[in-house]
Amino acid sequence: MRRAALRHCVVTELGLLCASFFARPTGSPDAEASMNPIFAADDARIAALADSLIAACNGFHARNWVPATGGNFSARLDDGHMLITASGVHKGELTRRDFLVADLDGRPLEAGRKASYETGLHTQLYRFDPAIGAVLHVHSVANTVLSRRHDAITLRNYELLKLIPGIMEPSTPVTIPVFANDQDIAALSRRVDAHMQEQTGLPAYLIAGHGLYTWGATVRDAKHRLEALEFMLECELWNGGKNHE
Amino acid sequence: MRRAALRHCVVTELGLLCASFFARPTGSPDAEASMNPIFAADDARIAALADSLIAACNGFHARNWVPATGGNFSARLDDGHMLITASGVHKGELTRRDFLVADLDGRPLEAGRKASYETGLHTQLYRFDPAIGAVLHVHSVANTVLSRRHDAITLRNYELLKLIPGIMEPSTPVTIPVFANDQDIAALSRRVDAHMQEQTGLPAYLIAGHGLYTWGATVRDAKHRLEALEFMLECELWNGGKNHE
Amino acid sequence: MRRAALRHCVVTELGLLCASFFARPTGSPDAEASMNPIFAADDARIAALADSLIAACNGFHARNWVPATGGNFSARLDDGHMLITASGVHKGELTRRDFLVADLDGRPLEAGRKASYETGLHTQLYRFDPAIGAVLHVHSVANTVLSRRHDAITLRNYELLKLIPGIMEPSTPVTIPVFANDQDIAALSRRVDAHMQEQTGLPAYLIAGHGLYTWGATVRDAKHRLEALEFMLECELWNGGKNHE
Amino acid sequence: MRRAALRHCVVTELGLLCASFFARPTGSPDAEASMNPIFAADDARIAALADSLIAACNGFHARNWVPATGGNFSARLDDGHMLITASGVHKGELTRRDFLVADLDGRPLEAGRKASYETGLHTQLYRFDPAIGAVLHVHSVANTVLSRRHDAITLRNYELLKLIPGIMEPSTPVTIPVFANDQDIAALSRRVDAHMQEQTGLPAYLIAGHGLYTWGATVRDAKHRLEALEFMLECELWNGGKNHE
Repeated sequence: MRRAALRHCVVTELGLLCASFFARPTGSPDAEASMNPIFAADDARIAALADSLIAACNGFHARNWVPATGGNFSARLDDGHMLITASGVHKGELTRRDFLVADLDGRPLEAGRKASYETGLHTQLYRFDPAIGAVLHVHSVANTVLSRRHDAITLRNYELLKLIPGIMEPSTPVTIPVFANDQDIAALSRRVDAHMQEQTGLPAYLIAGHGLYTWGATVRDAKHRLEALEFMLECELWNGGKNHE
Repeated sequence: MRRAALRHCVVTELGLLCASFFARPTGSPDAEASMNPIFAADDARIAALADSLIAACNGFHARNWVPATGGNFSARLDDGHMLITASGVHKGELTRRDFLVADLDGRPLEAGRKASYETGLHTQLYRFDPAIGAVLHVHSVANTVLSRRHDAITLRNYELLKLIPGIMEPSTPVTIPVFANDQDIAALSRRVDAHMQEQTGLPAYLIAGHGLYTWGATVRDAKHRLEALEFMLECELWNGGKNHE
Repeated sequence: MRRAALRHCVVTELGLLCASFFARPTGSPDAEASMNPIFAADDARIAALADSLIAACNGFHARNWVPATGGNFSARLDDGHMLITASGVHKGELTRRDFLVADLDGRPLEAGRKASYETGLHTQLYRFDPAIGAVLHVHSVANTVLSRRHDAITLRNYELLKLIPGIMEPSTPVTIPVFANDQDIAALSRRVDAHMQEQTGLPAYLIAGHGLYTWGATVRDAKHRLEALEFMLECELWNGGKNHE
Repeated sequence: MRRAALRHCVVTELGLLCASFFARPTGSPDAEASMNPIFAADDARIAALADSLIAACNGFHARNWVPATGGNFSARLDDGHMLITASGVHKGELTRRDFLVADLDGRPLEAGRKASYETGLHTQLYRFDPAIGAVLHVHSVANTVLSRRHDAITLRNYELLKLIPGIMEPSTPVTIPVFANDQDIAALSRRVDAHMQEQTGLPAYLIAGHGLYTWGATVRDAKHRLEALEFMLECELWNGGKNHE
């Protein structure tokens, strides 16, 4: 019931998101929908999630972590849907229009829209763990250079490791695996899934020459984890990546 | 006919571009021109192209890719004209006044203005390929340092290579040639042209100690390609430029 | 008398700080408090100190010196109290709400609030020297990388050393000690205190993998010292940290 | 006559500069002075010079070229006076109040103000060459690190060398001397002067561990030269400073 309402609402309200800079005619289906308090509430929630992803992404672009159309960002809407950046949009100039709603098989709910090429890596995470509420993927110089050099990056003795769930002591090593890059996203996503089934509590992973994926319960949590990881990877880059596999 | 109209319009409307912060007297030739819907449309298009080059350039300057007056930016107007930055203007403070219209021999249409010293490198590209709609030239630390060290830079195994037209697999190598710097722009432009005739599909080139030229169908496309290339060159700089010629 | 007034005022006025974006009902205790000129003056002073820490911190975040929730900031209010960032807040998005008042044993005056985990390192400094008016702790890439490599960093022959109190000649060496990181903040704070009792005039210290603590008579002084130290540490990072212990 | 008028005007109008955020009482000497068109014009010119130095400096601080109170900025007012930053002011937060007018012996015209410690290095330049209209001194990581390693930095094969007066070919080498740091500014300034008498056309110099001095006919020219030099020094830093003395 709730999901059906959301599905309808989303299709309707995405139009509203896209049209948010324009006046909407009184009496139109959109106007009626927005008088429905449930729809209106969902619309506000979707808009707030988009805005929070946009704000995070503007900060990442300023740091050169999402050059051009690189990177993807998503947030879970419910147990069957997510909000995700559309394919091919510039990550320093995102607007609400650059997001779409897709189900957890990666199918956009609105006809004619195309989700990010790497949608399958987002859906893998949302299906793997219902506690994951947001997924962030960035290409920084540090994560790209290190991911091309090593098979895994082990971080240790950084105070910021305490931002990783379950890490209470900075001396506890945290290993970020590096997967080989693959244009077959379904196959890559299965390899990630198999790894995560074995190594529980993984906080992030790298794809060689392609960047970092990390996540969290909320956009805020995922952003904090991302900033901490990118900081430690930049330190490792200055260290010359010694002592990694 | 269309070209003649544009030529007239450009001469007229460049004044309009330059005067855009001031009121224009009613009944003046400019005011009449702007009542002509064709002229008005062209003016808006020229202003929009200038604004889009300015916005891109502000971002490049913030990243230190266009120190002082370094760099040049242009966009095609039609099959015989382009909008290009004037000579000697600071690239972090561009205004509409800092652009001029020139034909594809590099001659400014407005008397008394001087196009960028490197105009010939822009006209070579517009003449070489009618699909090129914008040309961006920047001096970044990464492209400058690498262009002084190597005769060519080969990029491989970067996901962002997929932003280069024709590249579907990040494992496909893309070679960016480095031309020796030359104050004889006509001679340099002939060498570039000869290279591009031989090596079709070239996405960009470097000039030693002088920076990167890249292009695209639109300002947006060229900017995306530039951001992707500069990102990969910065990664190569951290790699110490190993494995390049 | 003055302290009692402040203590009362602080409890009252912190609510005011937190509520500063909302209207306050006329006739409420807060409204009465703010009619008391002493309370109003204290409130303005607390708000001004918070704003000055926020402004400093925004600059530090822009330079990537306080990734995610890393770093802590405080300012002395009187001989028994300080204003300090709350636990777990993002340092690039601080608002007045993210500060609390604590006594110099680190106990928040307002029930239900939690001071930064590292409060004990701030209170050690305020108790050690009554002339210390502000304490800043940041995690930069330079200070983190160097603090993991060395047991002490000696700075010499930098003009900016003259920003360190007592240094009149840039050739005078200044040694910044590196303490081992420790999750037992009380123990770490005792080691810092013992060191400062022996080595008078210490301007700053590092904690391995954890960052820099520095201070000054005012937020402004501490910020100037921090900018100077981070600049010299970044120079040392480029030098490869030669000649350090 | 003109100089006497300026001298009077400056003393008067500096008060006006300092008071520019406040209302000035009608009928006061300031108000009368500002009714004198010559004084008013000079005031506007001084304010414009201060604003142009402030704008330049904000850009330099954003790039971390003027940490804390490091750096000094000045512009010539006439053949006997300059506008210069006051002593000890933060270079990322300059306002018009942070400037003062001094004669070319470095004496502030307004009682009670203190010019920058390094005023003598500015006056040396204005006395040495009447064509110098602005002097900029910055501490960047690149110029500081290189100035500590080398006795001179020779730049060659950078297109941006053409921003140095007299350089038409990027292959022409330009040598930036490095002077030993000295707290006796008068002595240091005599060494600089002796060097400039011998090596005509010097575009800039470094002081070891202390930064770069450069200049130009206008603030704009000096800023362009500075951006070009800092860019080339940053390239040299990545090159490891090979091939320098």
